[in-house]
Amino acid sequence: MQRTLIGDLSAHKNEEVTIKGWVSVRRDQGKMVFFDFRDRTGTVQGVVLPSSAAIETAKEVRNEYVVSITGKVNARPEKNVNAKVQNGDIELEVTGIEVLAKAEPLPFDMSADGYNLELNTELDHRALTLRHPRLQAIFKVQAVIIDSFREYMKSQGFMEFQAPAITPATAEGGAEVFQVNYFDKKAYLTQSPQLYKQIVMTAFERVFSVNKVFRAEPSATTRHITEIVSLDAEMAFIDSWTDVRDMSEATVRYVLEQVQQKCAHELEVLGATLPTMIDKTPTYSLTEAFAKLGVPEDKDLNPEQERKLCEVVKEETGSDFVYVYGYPTMKKPFYVYPNPENPEFNEGMDLLCRGIEWLSGGRRINDYQQLLSHVEKWNMDPKKIEMFLEAFRYGAPPEGGFALGAERMTMQILGLKNIREATLFPRDMHRIDLPLSEGETNK
Amino acid sequence: MQRTLIGDLSAHKNEEVTIKGWVSVRRDQGKMVFFDFRDRTGTVQGVVLPSSAAIETAKEVRNEYVVSITGKVNARPEKNVNAKVQNGDIELEVTGIEVLAKAEPLPFDMSADGYNLELNTELDHRALTLRHPRLQAIFKVQAVIIDSFREYMKSQGFMEFQAPAITPATAEGGAEVFQVNYFDKKAYLTQSPQLYKQIVMTAFERVFSVNKVFRAEPSATTRHITEIVSLDAEMAFIDSWTDVRDMSEATVRYVLEQVQQKCAHELEVLGATLPTMIDKTPTYSLTEAFAKLGVPEDKDLNPEQERKLCEVVKEETGSDFVYVYGYPTMKKPFYVYPNPENPEFNEGMDLLCRGIEWLSGGRRINDYQQLLSHVEKWNMDPKKIEMFLEAFRYGAPPEGGFALGAERMTMQILGLKNIREATLFPRDMHRIDLPLSEGETNK
Repeated sequence: MQRTLIGDLSAHKNEEVTIKGWVSVRRDQGKMVFFDFRDRTGTVQGVVLPSSAAIETAKEVRNEYVVSITGKVNARPEKNVNAKVQNGDIELEVTGIEVLAKAEPLPFDMSADGYNLELNTELDHRALTLRHPRLQAIFKVQAVIIDSFREYMKSQGFMEFQAPAITPATAEGGAEVFQVNYFDKKAYLTQSPQLYKQIVMTAFERVFSVNKVFRAEPSATTRHITEIVSLDAEMAFIDSWTDVRDMSEATVRYVLEQVQQKCAHELEVLGATLPTMIDKTPTYSLTEAFAKLGVPEDKDLNPEQERKLCEVVKEETGSDFVYVYGYPTMKKPFYVYPNPENPEFNEGMDLLCRGIEWLSGGRRINDYQQLLSHVEKWNMDPKKIEMFLEAFRYGAPPEGGFALGAERMTMQILGLKNIREATLFPRDMHRIDLPLSEGETNK
Repeated sequence: MQRTLIGDLSAHKNEEVTIKGWVSVRRDQGKMVFFDFRDRTGTVQGVVLPSSAAIETAKEVRNEYVVSITGKVNARPEKNVNAKVQNGDIELEVTGIEVLAKAEPLPFDMSADGYNLELNTELDHRALTLRHPRLQAIFKVQAVIIDSFREYMKSQGFMEFQAPAITPATAEGGAEVFQVNYFDKKAYLTQSPQLYKQIVMTAFERVFSVNKVFRAEPSATTRHITEIVSLDAEMAFIDSWTDVRDMSEATVRYVLEQVQQKCAHELEVLGATLPTMIDKTPTYSLTEAFAKLGVPEDKDLNPEQERKLCEVVKEETGSDFVYVYGYPTMKKPFYVYPNPENPEFNEGMDLLCRGIEWLSGGRRINDYQQLLSHVEKWNMDPKKIEMFLEAFRYGAPPEGGFALGAERMTMQILGLKNIREATLFPRDMHRIDLPLSEGETNK
């Protein structure tokens, strides 16, 4: 019989159906056996009556067995209806069970309520823990975040491009770059598609990418992973850095709206409340931000100051978001556009939310001569960014762009404590899938 | 004045507008100067009359200058209308030119007709050659291919996931893997998200990903690049490998339809004709394929045989596509499902088109004990795929999946000669952006 998805069962009352999925819960009550079955669309309760042809098999089936279940969709008596759960008004009276795959006894409690693993255990057993509704909810939200980013970009005339992961030795590369043994040569994993997206912008005007970036920071904090999904955008023919701010704000607003609309169930499972974005996100220069905090001016906000600024802005305006722009020019990368009226400060910007930077971007230098002079001031080797410089040598429009980290955004939207929770297969100093053994050293 | 996109100009006849873009062509006719201006939406002809306030600037502007042009949209006299080109019925009478950025003289002819570069020169100057309509067309088509893949997957209930690029030493890894210096340990760049997509499938049933894979093959052919965009899908609860074939066929069909609909202009620029997919793509077992070719059976078709088979099938059925399934079990990876009636052959499949493999996939083993026995037969270390095996230890449904290379598909759809033409920033043995210098050795 054609498979019916569990999420569609309520449209099949009094019909005989076949569902396929996993056994989430099994309650053997002696004569009868109750089950919760699960597929990608949800869960339903099933009962195997003593008279059922399936009663013998039902006694042998265990949690996480993969089964094909034939049965009749019965409306529950009024007193048994549970309006709070999916399919709470029906019950599947099981007439046949086919075991498609067996499962070994679970190493820990995977039930919806009982699950309470240490993060390291959760990660060590990612292949199993991903079946938990809470973890599924996280990665469903992440898929919507990433897809909504793309959707909004496309709606604004941005073209998607594929940024490379392997890069040559770049002028930007520092200690925090992974080296790749590239045949008999050295190459590196990209830290950012920045220079590539600027190149592609000079051909297509508006471009975006969803690509991996890599950070070899030897940090083991709750915010650091080595492989990140970067959501990048770059746009030509801006009049001011505020055009970039506005585009980035509209993008984040769209993503939040989509998550609200498409992930209501997941947000509920995770007990998450989306941050508030007001009509016009408050925007302060770095100088103004320090004044607001009443602390001496510095080259950047430290994490504590970022938290504090978000608190103050939330209190004053109701906004969970705040833009900070105008950083000391010489403290930032060479391509950031200096404020023409005050070149000590640039037109770079960050978007903070709930105490953490979500997005950074700003206007870039598009004038070739100005770029060359920055390359010199920054003590960079122009040969190492030859292809990038060529894009600007032959006429590049005023432009800017921004970037978001998908995992950080997921973590922050959902109020997770550790970025590893928001990463399907997190890599860090100590883990690639499983903890790195001491045996596999590179020495 | 608000910018009007060049593609929208025909709706503004007799109005004054401002356009922003690049100078593609400049023809100084002494008293008057003619231009072709270009933005991301197309091109338009402009004329600067001797009486125009912009005539002095017009004399100084050169190809690839970035300009903001103010002018009046005039209908062309009947005799000057060119119905074959965009905006062939209008001309912009330029009243003002603002130079937004200058360009140096071009190193080679970039005009639409005159462009005729060697591939290596094209790649050495990717930052500039990307501005050519022909190259722009290629990457617009590629964006549609990738996006259409995602669209179709989503429409079929597949969830997007992010597959990792950095992997631990895997049982599958051979010589053709790039090694990464991972802090003080060794890691590798993924060759395929295969094991990860199977893991994620056991949680979400239907999953897809668009992610980079890396091949360290020391080959310098027209088909080999080291960094590839892999379009991957995996689906649970199949009844047969033919479910996977059908899903992959429907996916490719959808992608072709979308390219046809959305890229008519680009296909014309490139002189490309989409391959023909008939109602039901012909499908042969490998044994049948060899019989068809009248050659002795072997473990796989060689490139010449693939070409020949496609020719024969095209002749017989009109189909540019052909599926081949049923490869010798022991010659393929451990996870491919052996045909239960004839376990010497598996239920893996390839989709060929125009002489080249586009897609491969098939049914996978979902039974844990069978997987373990294959791991042993294939002489693999189960510790190295521990996370993968865990997914199957706890109940995994019958399943399969498939994968496509985005660059190869782009190349084949457009009839390009070299996969590097279909790759924005191709990496190979000898090139990462620019040719690798001998100085940067790893020794």
